[in-house]
Amino acid sequence: MEKLYITYNQIHETVKSLSQEIISADFKPDLIIAIGTGGFIPARMIKTYLNRSIQTVGIAYYDLNNIPSEKPVITQWLDGADEKLKGKKILLVDEVDDSRATIGFCLEELQKHDPEEIAVMVIHNKKKKKAREIPPQIRHYFIGENFDDQWICYPWDAENIAEHDSLSLQAGLE
Amino acid sequence: MEKLYITYNQIHETVKSLSQEIISADFKPDLIIAIGTGGFIPARMIKTYLNRSIQTVGIAYYDLNNIPSEKPVITQWLDGADEKLKGKKILLVDEVDDSRATIGFCLEELQKHDPEEIAVMVIHNKKKKKAREIPPQIRHYFIGENFDDQWICYPWDAENIAEHDSLSLQAGLE
Repeated sequence: MEKLYITYNQIHETVKSLSQEIISADFKPDLIIAIGTGGFIPARMIKTYLNRSIQTVGIAYYDLNNIPSEKPVITQWLDGADEKLKGKKILLVDEVDDSRATIGFCLEELQKHDPEEIAVMVIHNKKKKKAREIPPQIRHYFIGENFDDQWICYPWDAENIAEHDSLSLQAGLE
Repeated sequence: MEKLYITYNQIHETVKSLSQEIISADFKPDLIIAIGTGGFIPARMIKTYLNRSIQTVGIAYYDLNNIPSEKPVITQWLDGADEKLKGKKILLVDEVDDSRATIGFCLEELQKHDPEEIAVMVIHNKKKKKAREIPPQIRHYFIGENFDDQWICYPWDAENIAEHDSLSLQAGLE
């Protein structure tokens, strides 16, 4: 599978465009929720443009004893979730919509706390069969870029960031 | 006050060096704790090198109604903190040790849950008078770079990331 190397600055620029789209759509979140750990960096970037505070949730495919799990497992949840979410407009942030299992699970869990509205923002969406539908009550789904089902290499996973950037640049020149 | 512009890649390189220091010091964390929101990006970067999961805590100088506060306020805490922290070795991550009020407060709160050991990692330390001492039970305090009391501009706060990087480059050429 072809690998696609994305730099920090490319993600920052994509987040900036997303912020303009969110503002144009007149969606005004009370709160940003980052899905950890992939959503941490995009969420911190979008905070600069939207000026809202961030809460995080941790979703993983292993449990607290590091045993792999096929289903998503909550590794951290909001303390006082009812108080923080009820009647609020939430911007849920993750880096990628791949199979959508994580985002779908997270939406289901957040909706139990009766928010006014949840919008989703992802940097990248993979055009592929999804494990879940986006529920009809989600009116806003902000996608930075759509890709085919490629292997996306995020900068925060790079052991050698200079090499990562040079692989990204080479691909851009092809 | 002189402004110092730091790029994402510079921070990534600093985190890589810090990971080598942590490994050399034989400190093996069970868990990374990111202090939000400044610690989110450094914590996600160090995860790549240390391969440990991340929990987050939110500390701010405003309350949940956005009223400014002089003292640090907890905006998010660990759900099930006793279970997650008791007997564990924690790596607490933030971007900067400025007055040390946030880190000092956070250490005090975390220690209530009886971890085996907490080590602190910051990307930058400002050489200035601190509001708190690092408690004597903290044996490891990993600092990426020490600066004078300058205004550090982090890339995630940049509205224009290309301009930010060019200001960083210019400073490097002086």
